[in-house]
Amino acid sequence: MKMETTSNADFTDETLTQAVLKAFAMTPDPRLRQIMTSLVEHLHTFVREVEPTSHEWESAIDFLTRTGQTCDETRQEFILLSDVLGVSMLMETIKDEAAPEATESTVLGPFHMTESPQRELGDSIDLVGTGMPCVVTGRVLSMGGSPLAGAGVDVWQADERGFYDVQVPDAQPAGNGRGLFTTDDDGRFWFRTVVPSHYPIPTDGPVGSLLDHTGRHPYRPAHIHFLVSADGHEPLTTHIFVADSPYIDSDAVFAVKRSLIVEFTEENDADVAAWYGVGVPFRHARFDLTLPVAMTTADHPNQTTTTPKSLTS
Amino acid sequence: MKMETTSNADFTDETLTQAVLKAFAMTPDPRLRQIMTSLVEHLHTFVREVEPTSHEWESAIDFLTRTGQTCDETRQEFILLSDVLGVSMLMETIKDEAAPEATESTVLGPFHMTESPQRELGDSIDLVGTGMPCVVTGRVLSMGGSPLAGAGVDVWQADERGFYDVQVPDAQPAGNGRGLFTTDDDGRFWFRTVVPSHYPIPTDGPVGSLLDHTGRHPYRPAHIHFLVSADGHEPLTTHIFVADSPYIDSDAVFAVKRSLIVEFTEENDADVAAWYGVGVPFRHARFDLTLPVAMTTADHPNQTTTTPKSLTS
Repeated sequence: MKMETTSNADFTDETLTQAVLKAFAMTPDPRLRQIMTSLVEHLHTFVREVEPTSHEWESAIDFLTRTGQTCDETRQEFILLSDVLGVSMLMETIKDEAAPEATESTVLGPFHMTESPQRELGDSIDLVGTGMPCVVTGRVLSMGGSPLAGAGVDVWQADERGFYDVQVPDAQPAGNGRGLFTTDDDGRFWFRTVVPSHYPIPTDGPVGSLLDHTGRHPYRPAHIHFLVSADGHEPLTTHIFVADSPYIDSDAVFAVKRSLIVEFTEENDADVAAWYGVGVPFRHARFDLTLPVAMTTADHPNQTTTTPKSLTS
Repeated sequence: MKMETTSNADFTDETLTQAVLKAFAMTPDPRLRQIMTSLVEHLHTFVREVEPTSHEWESAIDFLTRTGQTCDETRQEFILLSDVLGVSMLMETIKDEAAPEATESTVLGPFHMTESPQRELGDSIDLVGTGMPCVVTGRVLSMGGSPLAGAGVDVWQADERGFYDVQVPDAQPAGNGRGLFTTDDDGRFWFRTVVPSHYPIPTDGPVGSLLDHTGRHPYRPAHIHFLVSADGHEPLTTHIFVADSPYIDSDAVFAVKRSLIVEFTEENDADVAAWYGVGVPFRHARFDLTLPVAMTTADHPNQTTTTPKSLTS
């Protein structure tokens, strides 16, 4: 009888986990092997702890499927899920602990576009003109304070009603609220915009439904996104938060860092306004961004530099 | 300054987890609250353990997105992911431990159709006629051995080349290899089919890529799926496995139970063949299915009967 030789069968909940771990033990890439081993251990522990019913498992499969199918060119519902579960911010927090002198990072969020429009220093990223005029100025610095010339400063933000361009293509032209700037010889950047509003994350998809049924509000305090890059440095993903914004104490994605809260001060000096090309009054946010020096592989002893290809191809 | 009052900020990796748990603590449904609490705890432990790089996190987001977008009316890639990670089988194993006298259950798999074609006892589910003829007979029983008349026996299987109808709509008519039967007054069922083949799970999607890059084969031993239901009993999801099938020792989804391995014996009796409406030789698989008595809410002290609606709406 074949049955006598069937070793890979009749698992208990403990031996099954061992069998799955054994199946992944031959993964050629050591980093991918480490990730899959840890994933299986913790995922199985979760399942043994909650003992999902068949109906709950089907609901979870359906939830994940709809989350994937809600994604398109301009919407990333799985990033939103990572954000509301605190996973995105947990990763940024772990990363920041490795470079405590740098500007703190925070979540990327689901609305970053790979191609922001290239703009000149001083340009406006506001193409509509209905909000409170605002000037953002600052410098990109290396650890120790030396300015970084030629750094890339990619910014994106919601408008004064709380919408990104891709959410309301009928109301905002593509590229509104977005710009890719390059710092000058002193590491300086400056641009014109409008003061962003707080806003709810999209609530019409599976993640919004999750928040609704768990009694959580969907709001984020007002902020401007930054993704800053410079040769020889790690890229920095962060926001500046508007100091007097609602929800600064209860961000739905847990992304607020005290060091990133910036006063958007009211300015009435007509000469300064004229220099920046705005009227009075306008708001002025000043913020410097300090980038961590690039890490080498030696700084990541547990991680290989290879990509887990199975997850990207 | 607003910053002084911002309590929900500046998290460490430990306080962040506490903040996310607190955000879910107001979930009205206690079962959903239990699930989300356990999910956040184990998911954060996983992230702290592997410390994903930004690139790895992006790869994971992309993998999950593509897994959702690979799903359609006839393909369920997230079930496949649950299967190859051993999660589906872990759930069945936990469930079986609660009803040790019943027939063991195993994974549903991604190819169950909600509507199998209704067929009469003795009908053939094989609409093509190119495989080895096979007769499957058995009874549906309650715990203790009493026959269950009028039980629903939903069966589905791959053909002799290892394909389900929905995978090859040009080569198999819809409903091939599928049938929904009703047991007679003695709890008996019988139907004609072909001996199924072992086969690879679909390898052209994200899950196939995951198996490839982790050095795992994609094969499942030959089997016929059963989903059996009867009044007053828990539904039973199981397979019978063909005893001499390749991969019986290394099922890619960990689903083999020794008690579910069945000899598909060769039969040459022309009278028996004529009774079933097949020629000789044919193969004959005999298997009884014992259903657990329906559980009441009292048997699930940790679980409410309410559906986690956030996951279904």
